[in-house]
Amino acid sequence: MGKIKNIVLIGAGNVATHLAFAFENAGLQILQVYSRTLSSAKTLANELYTDYTINITDVNPGADLYIISISDDVIYTMVGDLKLKNQLVVHTSGSVTMDAINPVSENVGVFYPLQTFSKSKKVDFKNIPICIEANNEENTKLLISLAENISSNVNRIDSEERKILHLAAVFACNFPNLMYTVSENILKGKNLDFNLLRPLIIETASKVQKMDPGDAQTGPARRGDEKIMKQHLEMLKDYPGFEMLYKLISSEIQKY
Amino acid sequence: MGKIKNIVLIGAGNVATHLAFAFENAGLQILQVYSRTLSSAKTLANELYTDYTINITDVNPGADLYIISISDDVIYTMVGDLKLKNQLVVHTSGSVTMDAINPVSENVGVFYPLQTFSKSKKVDFKNIPICIEANNEENTKLLISLAENISSNVNRIDSEERKILHLAAVFACNFPNLMYTVSENILKGKNLDFNLLRPLIIETASKVQKMDPGDAQTGPARRGDEKIMKQHLEMLKDYPGFEMLYKLISSEIQKY
Repeated sequence: MGKIKNIVLIGAGNVATHLAFAFENAGLQILQVYSRTLSSAKTLANELYTDYTINITDVNPGADLYIISISDDVIYTMVGDLKLKNQLVVHTSGSVTMDAINPVSENVGVFYPLQTFSKSKKVDFKNIPICIEANNEENTKLLISLAENISSNVNRIDSEERKILHLAAVFACNFPNLMYTVSENILKGKNLDFNLLRPLIIETASKVQKMDPGDAQTGPARRGDEKIMKQHLEMLKDYPGFEMLYKLISSEIQKY
Repeated sequence: MGKIKNIVLIGAGNVATHLAFAFENAGLQILQVYSRTLSSAKTLANELYTDYTINITDVNPGADLYIISISDDVIYTMVGDLKLKNQLVVHTSGSVTMDAINPVSENVGVFYPLQTFSKSKKVDFKNIPICIEANNEENTKLLISLAENISSNVNRIDSEERKILHLAAVFACNFPNLMYTVSENILKGKNLDFNLLRPLIIETASKVQKMDPGDAQTGPARRGDEKIMKQHLEMLKDYPGFEMLYKLISSEIQKY
């Protein structure tokens, strides 16, 4: 059993881009970047000083590993077009089962970095949990050893567990971000600066790095301060959506 | 006009404790700690090598500033008992107006640090926004200059603005924390470790330190990925509260 030395990226979005640089920094070679979008393929390939293609039939057949990092819907349609000789193929999606890429190869797996990526913001992979699954033990070990090049937080997670993780990640990431948006909107209505809340936001996330979120809960709903909650609902009268959120979330807090 | 050199703390909870150490580090003197709870008064006073009392009538009358840092409800009841000679008195609450402490003194103000405090976690005051209000310009300047000893983020915020800030802070802090709790519960149901989500939580908060939260939004609701959202709702069937949250928050995300 060899080691993975070179990689073809199928996709050039946020996840593919961040992974590519992490692999490159770890001494691995990105042989080629494929993307349907010429500008994306070209941009990433140029940054990596490597080859690119926009034709799925021109994908380099000589890599040790193919990483499919494209939106979920496209995974299902593209697996029919990608022709390989049973090399190891993984996808990076939180919500697609491993089986979905069975048509591409007999050696398949998942390489799911549990993080939120934006093009403009660098991330340090070292602490990012990487969730690994593969069709057999040999491939699992290959992927774990690859992941350990870039992260010290590598986990075996099967497709069922990954679905749960992905759902929990929506609550841990996407939904808090909506709360930030709401708070910004409330401030905007009175010309107050969102900067006033930024230290609070980072401290709130920072607290639960060690504490249990249940123990970290504060605020009027936690205290059962009905007077303040009534005052807040009164203030939200002009924002019916926010008012509903306030009621529902407060009642969930009070359940604990 | 002098400078504030020594302080009596009315209250010995999280905010009082964190403020006390910040002031002490800045070279100010805490003359006395008052708390209705003997153990709280004693603990904090001992840590500060200072005096304490549990009798409101024994509060030291010789301080430059009195900081009332007790729960909102208790502020209203205790203002009748605190007898002072018109020294400067402030409270630290986000949701109580300045007028509430008028009965105590002719010189009143608010000293509101916009942060979430836990006893067990140290905080660096330097970046904490401190919101200042006072009954006149002289007192405002005294409080601003005091605040600048411990923070480089000092703001003039009146009682109306502070109410808005406090409401926005509920969305920026208390509600994201409930989302963390939900995500932890979802994982627990399948024996998955909350540690897997911690890096995601801190990165999500970290992103909006520079970005606008609207631009940072990701996830199935943002992408309009109905298939995943349906799958998630299916998975939440056994948690009716979480299912409601998922629906409502997703629909708010889709409004933007």
